[in-house]
Amino acid sequence: MKALRFTDNQLKLTEIAAPETEGEALIRVLKSGICNTDLEIVRGYAGFSGTIGHEFVGVVEKADDKPELVGKRVVGEINAGCGVCDLCRKGDARHCAARTVLGIHGRDGAHAEFLTLPGVNLLAVPADVSDEQAIFTEPLAAAYGISEQVEITPETRIAVIGDGKLGLLCAMSFALKTANIVLIGKHIEKLSVAKKRNIEGVLLENAVPKLNRRFDIVVEASGSESGFATALDLLKPRGKLVLKSTFQGKTNLEMWRVVVDEITIVGSRCGRFAPVLELLKDGLIDVESLISEELPLENGVEAMHRASRKDVMKVVLSMTN
Amino acid sequence: MKALRFTDNQLKLTEIAAPETEGEALIRVLKSGICNTDLEIVRGYAGFSGTIGHEFVGVVEKADDKPELVGKRVVGEINAGCGVCDLCRKGDARHCAARTVLGIHGRDGAHAEFLTLPGVNLLAVPADVSDEQAIFTEPLAAAYGISEQVEITPETRIAVIGDGKLGLLCAMSFALKTANIVLIGKHIEKLSVAKKRNIEGVLLENAVPKLNRRFDIVVEASGSESGFATALDLLKPRGKLVLKSTFQGKTNLEMWRVVVDEITIVGSRCGRFAPVLELLKDGLIDVESLISEELPLENGVEAMHRASRKDVMKVVLSMTN
Repeated sequence: MKALRFTDNQLKLTEIAAPETEGEALIRVLKSGICNTDLEIVRGYAGFSGTIGHEFVGVVEKADDKPELVGKRVVGEINAGCGVCDLCRKGDARHCAARTVLGIHGRDGAHAEFLTLPGVNLLAVPADVSDEQAIFTEPLAAAYGISEQVEITPETRIAVIGDGKLGLLCAMSFALKTANIVLIGKHIEKLSVAKKRNIEGVLLENAVPKLNRRFDIVVEASGSESGFATALDLLKPRGKLVLKSTFQGKTNLEMWRVVVDEITIVGSRCGRFAPVLELLKDGLIDVESLISEELPLENGVEAMHRASRKDVMKVVLSMTN
Repeated sequence: MKALRFTDNQLKLTEIAAPETEGEALIRVLKSGICNTDLEIVRGYAGFSGTIGHEFVGVVEKADDKPELVGKRVVGEINAGCGVCDLCRKGDARHCAARTVLGIHGRDGAHAEFLTLPGVNLLAVPADVSDEQAIFTEPLAAAYGISEQVEITPETRIAVIGDGKLGLLCAMSFALKTANIVLIGKHIEKLSVAKKRNIEGVLLENAVPKLNRRFDIVVEASGSESGFATALDLLKPRGKLVLKSTFQGKTNLEMWRVVVDEITIVGSRCGRFAPVLELLKDGLIDVESLISEELPLENGVEAMHRASRKDVMKVVLSMTN
């Protein structure tokens, strides 16, 4: 099968054998989405080597551990736990110390014709949800999941720092709960995407003087170190800073400000898929219009280049054309 | 009056005029306690200049804004707000942007014969609470207040990093709520103070290999940058790191670990005095035995030197002998 692989520090479309299932489910991938994490992996983040990609929709070909899924269209949670530790037994493989992560850590990913995952990771996609919508399940869960970590009411004032895909998905998710949202970024064209959804956009250079100490919650989704300091400037005392960015290496931060203003920092990685499939089914979040282009898997390397451009939002790979 | 002052980068016992009250209460100080923050101020932290000290017990001499307190023995919350902003009107001057802080920011402190504070900051000390106990109200509130920020149940497993006064007060406070506490530090003699109170002490060098990923809550009270990394090693995924240390300047931290393990960091500075006066009255926390020595205010400079020694716990200044 074809697979977009990062090995020996090189990104290549490669012909490899289809994966063995070893008790897991075999999924024929229909489409996959390119995430910023894919771009970071190719820059060396996480030391991953193998097939990249973790946002996908596919059809189950084989599932010894969950046979009722065969033939079904599915999405899949990306963390696969050991199944035996305390966390896994409590149903949360996302923090299993021995976990593998699809296309990120110890497990080949989704930019390929086939992938495997434990049956327990898979969720059937409702018929009303298109393939294009379904590939947003994972990133939208990462965004929407924030509202399961911090309380958001109609009175809550939220700023999202970072106008990339993740920032936009966060802002769109929060818009379901409060109208008091500001998206802060560097790109007028991306902020205008938010504006079309009635979300106020503010250029980063204007944010601190204009919006100083205004917000109950600030989400840092820009991935840049300066985003952390900006977040502290924007938060009210006792506010909450939600960290989505996995800054590489060590970061230089003024942590004393966190103590003096009694800020709570909430690290946030993955979210649950089930509530997000409901949102997509009910058409409550328009994700499809975030797709900039779709390319066949064969053009995976080119697709990655395009996805790294500042004026491009989601790039989709298709395995069926 | 005599006052222990840090001015022009010099610590000196100085004779100055007693303070004008300007609508606030005038308090004759009986005793004050030397805090690590006092030592940090003398090293240049916070750029403060004036009379240092913020832990005290005293008698109200004059209180135009709260005359019922005159003649009463009191302790005082150290943050004095503007009185008119949203936060002050909600009764929380601790985060007023225009606040002054006793002996720390814009307001002369407690290592002096007299001090002033707004009447609203003062709390009468119950008769059963000794002067020596009362001077612990402020630091104990900073420790005990953590349990108002994060939930501690009998099942909660807590580690406190830092075997100084603050770390010990934290461990002693949490011992009222759970038996699963470990105090981690570098000094066998300080850990033995904890042991006398049935709190397990572990040397820092043994902590990470022995106690990796064991704790629901870790309190960083060591003030050293490495304490942050140690805390992340000790926490379970989704655990809570309570930051008490106001690290100076910028710190180099692996914030990506906070995201990957979805850690919550809770910045924690001051706590409420009222619940702590109840604890002291009921004799639930033995603070007096933490006093290493008591010196007269005249020997304030020497007292500060003694307080900076690693083998010394609380040093008390007395204004009455």
